[in-house]
Amino acid sequence: MLLAELATSEYVLSTQPKLETFVATVLKTVGVAPDDSRVVAEVLVASDLRGIESHGVARLESYYVSRIRAGKLNANPAYRIVRETGTSVVYDADNGLGHPVAKMAMQKVIEKARAQGAAFGAVRNSNHFGIAGYYAMLALDHDMIGLASTNSVRYGAPTYGRDIMLGTNPLAFAVPTAKEPAFVLDFATTTVPRGKLEVYQRKEKPLEDGWAIDAQGHPTTEPAEALKGALLPLGGFGVEHGGHKGYGLGMLVDILCGVLSGGAFGNILPLPSSGPEAGAISHWFGAFRVDGFRDVAEFKADMDRELRAFKQSSKVPGQTRIYVAGEIEHEKTFYHRENGVPVHHKVWAGLQKLAGELEIPFALQK
Amino acid sequence: MLLAELATSEYVLSTQPKLETFVATVLKTVGVAPDDSRVVAEVLVASDLRGIESHGVARLESYYVSRIRAGKLNANPAYRIVRETGTSVVYDADNGLGHPVAKMAMQKVIEKARAQGAAFGAVRNSNHFGIAGYYAMLALDHDMIGLASTNSVRYGAPTYGRDIMLGTNPLAFAVPTAKEPAFVLDFATTTVPRGKLEVYQRKEKPLEDGWAIDAQGHPTTEPAEALKGALLPLGGFGVEHGGHKGYGLGMLVDILCGVLSGGAFGNILPLPSSGPEAGAISHWFGAFRVDGFRDVAEFKADMDRELRAFKQSSKVPGQTRIYVAGEIEHEKTFYHRENGVPVHHKVWAGLQKLAGELEIPFALQK
Repeated sequence: MLLAELATSEYVLSTQPKLETFVATVLKTVGVAPDDSRVVAEVLVASDLRGIESHGVARLESYYVSRIRAGKLNANPAYRIVRETGTSVVYDADNGLGHPVAKMAMQKVIEKARAQGAAFGAVRNSNHFGIAGYYAMLALDHDMIGLASTNSVRYGAPTYGRDIMLGTNPLAFAVPTAKEPAFVLDFATTTVPRGKLEVYQRKEKPLEDGWAIDAQGHPTTEPAEALKGALLPLGGFGVEHGGHKGYGLGMLVDILCGVLSGGAFGNILPLPSSGPEAGAISHWFGAFRVDGFRDVAEFKADMDRELRAFKQSSKVPGQTRIYVAGEIEHEKTFYHRENGVPVHHKVWAGLQKLAGELEIPFALQK
Repeated sequence: MLLAELATSEYVLSTQPKLETFVATVLKTVGVAPDDSRVVAEVLVASDLRGIESHGVARLESYYVSRIRAGKLNANPAYRIVRETGTSVVYDADNGLGHPVAKMAMQKVIEKARAQGAAFGAVRNSNHFGIAGYYAMLALDHDMIGLASTNSVRYGAPTYGRDIMLGTNPLAFAVPTAKEPAFVLDFATTTVPRGKLEVYQRKEKPLEDGWAIDAQGHPTTEPAEALKGALLPLGGFGVEHGGHKGYGLGMLVDILCGVLSGGAFGNILPLPSSGPEAGAISHWFGAFRVDGFRDVAEFKADMDRELRAFKQSSKVPGQTRIYVAGEIEHEKTFYHRENGVPVHHKVWAGLQKLAGELEIPFALQK
């Protein structure tokens, strides 16, 4: 969001330090350990900085605090390693917050990859961990390629299916560069998130083809019908537009996270309507050293060449830029650090209410 | 293809052993080493067995033999390792056939993953290697998860771009199971392959939305215009249907294969119209042990549960089956082994012509 848009928008400006301090204070107040609180704050605010409002402070109350207060999410989990080799590690998150254990697991994977060249890790019995890209990006400073993924509560149907069987199951990959922003691909394997259907319903706009089916399994562009149905995988309905590929990727994520970790998977995972379920989410991570393949400086210089070639290629009529993965989020992060982090006024009001309830200071304004 | 269809079709039936022997004989006759010839035969016929005719014996002349005879592809390459660690290996294929060096690289990756738990590999300066899934599946017998990928000559445009910048860049993942067929996801990161546009042109059928753009960069459903333009990434034109995700995946493949191996990448890769270029293709492989995460037998039993849950879930109106990745190809392989491998009569005639030119026996009929 640019300031020009903000001026006429319904957003209030805060700052990264203020938001992080607030989120950490909220979590500490509801019983989360200080170190864990800081990690959650860092991940949520990183999402707002990257312009991914849906995964940022907007979720503080509904995804995390409300579940802790309802006794559905363990504020003081005993994160523990349940299996470990030189190149792998599996954590049980004890139904705690996903962010701290996910960061811990990715750091362990990086440590193992530093020693061995490549490593993978998984976390089971966890909860929502924010943006997958955050964890993949932890590999960048170590001259490694990072991978991160998570399954989620279920929203989506398989190709030719009408049962809700799959989460939005994101996959993230981060690749280091020299002077260009890192290549960071972080995407849900459904065509759109469920929140997008809700936005279109509020705006009374028809959906695009390929986003959703109704409860009977027919493709629909009607938001109300879609919200009673299921999201479609990347590629849309059937196989004509490659929907079977998005379905396969979504299932791959469920396998790598849920089945491989020994956690919940498939139709064992909760539906959003069934309310918060204890620790049903699993994550998966990977990292490998670039210098196992070639000289790091040469690789990074070629990455810059690769990204620039795409950015400088010819545009279709009416478009002025070709982006590479992670570029928009990188630009927004710098912009928001400099100019303030926009928080939607409804989210702002929610945070203010939360501060009142918890009797903590609310001083978020930039 | 079922026999009922075959009876009224334009296919001739051969067998796996006859086709493999023929392909190997052809390649030996044009100067390829016997061992390498057998690997190429195995991979090409595996593709026909799996029902992926486009990547099978149909390509023997155009992709491999013609290039060897024209001196564009090295029949006797010195495949060599140019970098190696405990968990990584990079080969230079010396502009040789892709299949033998790809199999060699994946086997080396598996050997390293057996010792270390996880490993990756790449091949540069190579040529078309057939189906990516073949190499990923080599991990299955070792209770590992296998990954394989390759970049290719360019056919596709990036999101909002009209220059041809990306290959069909497939990604393949293979995951072992107990009694169910293995999960094998093998897909091009463009919505459709270029060959599909040619088929629709011959049949005078309009394309589906989201398959291609014309030379000016406008979405088109006209095959002739599309063939002068570019393929679109999985997700189609623009970002509304997730085209930026398919574009990101295609570029990820180009990075993992081309940039990481120190090979050709981006717009350095040849266009199909520019004819065969020496060794411009790169591949990427990975494997990691399931028992780094959990007991293998438990994992495989849960994989069966996962796959069955999807297959048994409710179908949309008009559909009787939900498939999981690799299931159709698995069924076809068994069927074709039992009942014969169908070869299109035009491909058959081409093979017969080739046999005549090379003065080798042609006895492919089942």
